[in-house]
Amino acid sequence: MTVPLADTDAAIPVLAVVGVGLIGGSFAAALKAQGVVGKVLGVGRQSVTLSRARALGLIDQATTLEQALTHADMVMLATPVGAIVPLLRRMQPLLRKQTIVTDAGSTKLDVSHGAREALGDKINQFVPGHPIAGAEQAGPEAADANLFAERTVILTPSAVTSEAAVQRVTQAWELCGARVISMPAGVHDTVLASVSHVPHFLSSAFMWQVAMSEDSDRRLALAGSGFRDFTRIAAGSPEVWRDIFLANRKAVLSELREVRQALSRAEEALEAADGPALQDFLERAAVARRFWGSRTR
Amino acid sequence: MTVPLADTDAAIPVLAVVGVGLIGGSFAAALKAQGVVGKVLGVGRQSVTLSRARALGLIDQATTLEQALTHADMVMLATPVGAIVPLLRRMQPLLRKQTIVTDAGSTKLDVSHGAREALGDKINQFVPGHPIAGAEQAGPEAADANLFAERTVILTPSAVTSEAAVQRVTQAWELCGARVISMPAGVHDTVLASVSHVPHFLSSAFMWQVAMSEDSDRRLALAGSGFRDFTRIAAGSPEVWRDIFLANRKAVLSELREVRQALSRAEEALEAADGPALQDFLERAAVARRFWGSRTR
Repeated sequence: MTVPLADTDAAIPVLAVVGVGLIGGSFAAALKAQGVVGKVLGVGRQSVTLSRARALGLIDQATTLEQALTHADMVMLATPVGAIVPLLRRMQPLLRKQTIVTDAGSTKLDVSHGAREALGDKINQFVPGHPIAGAEQAGPEAADANLFAERTVILTPSAVTSEAAVQRVTQAWELCGARVISMPAGVHDTVLASVSHVPHFLSSAFMWQVAMSEDSDRRLALAGSGFRDFTRIAAGSPEVWRDIFLANRKAVLSELREVRQALSRAEEALEAADGPALQDFLERAAVARRFWGSRTR
Repeated sequence: MTVPLADTDAAIPVLAVVGVGLIGGSFAAALKAQGVVGKVLGVGRQSVTLSRARALGLIDQATTLEQALTHADMVMLATPVGAIVPLLRRMQPLLRKQTIVTDAGSTKLDVSHGAREALGDKINQFVPGHPIAGAEQAGPEAADANLFAERTVILTPSAVTSEAAVQRVTQAWELCGARVISMPAGVHDTVLASVSHVPHFLSSAFMWQVAMSEDSDRRLALAGSGFRDFTRIAAGSPEVWRDIFLANRKAVLSELREVRQALSRAEEALEAADGPALQDFLERAAVARRFWGSRTR
């Protein structure tokens, strides 16, 4: 298989996307829409997914990881987070000096630690990242060139990361319409445990409990729009979320303990039929949520 | 104050709405849009709210409860649920034989029990109901003639409820575009505890915990679309939800215990870093949610 020459005048002459699902496909679609990539190579485990991605115009060609590495200027790893470090290990011997590698994994401490060990002296070429965007849909069909518009992308470079590499990854995300911010990987993981991983865990545990109940049919027949919103995230990819929970296990367990304590306090107020305490708790939550909603779209 | 004669050919010549907020205002707006009410009288604690409801065209006139009862063919009680039984008690001496009373309270066992005691031998005129519809907004400005389109309304008549009254309330809701079903009040409360009240409780406890954390600003700045959906219901009216939790206290506490057990099982899998168990739990939740989503809009 040959990979024809790409437009070398483009900002990213050859982009390789490993894992052409919602995130990887949307990244490729956004950069293509901006006309800043010469050619997009798609790498993945399932050839049927790559064929669909190609038919959708998200990638120009499906290749092996090894072929992609001999041509790519930038490699985006958009697989479930548990696959990222094994991929970096396979990539290490073949990675050319001029290639920049970044990822879209939802946890960053484990990826950063693993990357250091996997890439060795090529660690400066790797820019860990995480776009705060997603949807309950998965797969290339869900990809959308506008997925990252006005969303935040967090990069967690370390002291050894090449400043030029950080700049090029930042530029690529900004071309996708995103805001880019930087923070230490540990801070990222603690904050995301709170506002992303724990809600998913709670929503899934709740959905599981309803679905496993004896009268689940009747319950689900009477569930309304509150239920719909509250459980939407529980429809997300089980594989992706298993990896996230395992990768950020300690921070998630720690936050879950905090939420349990808050829940216990609220339950005690209900147990005691303490109207003013209940109203105070609901009021603080409602005010905080309304204020947050007024600041974001 | 005089209440002019209304169009007596209308299906509901005079409708009185007590509590002209999201639900009461939308009920009035939907029936007006269908041209089936002659006149809508609005009753409420705050004259400023009634003025806004009148300016918005939701009601034709603001009256006292007593005035409304001398003219109304149907009375819709759309206040927070804790106010319904006290209202019925005030209404009892004035309630004319031909007037049908219904409510939109989110709990039904307490309302049914209280109504029996409050209305005495007029209990046959009262049709307890609950539209499964809502939004995080409140107040007359949030009212929408289409709020109930394709939504479910549950009626919980008892053996003593007038069959003719049930038929007229059913007809009114169907004119609003809703599907109407009947079930015992106790079943309603158990099911709604599961799919409506517990999600609200969990969402609020979570939102409270995030808002009260030391680094809440940073957390909220990085919260994305999953957080947005999961916490949307926490913005709901604290007064309305306090009443719901107090009115359905036992069923809510019982369901919360079930959810805690499900959560404990999931946490144990995470604590043990048991990937297959975690994936199984996430898979069952995701499949159930996707199936539910495919059946509803």
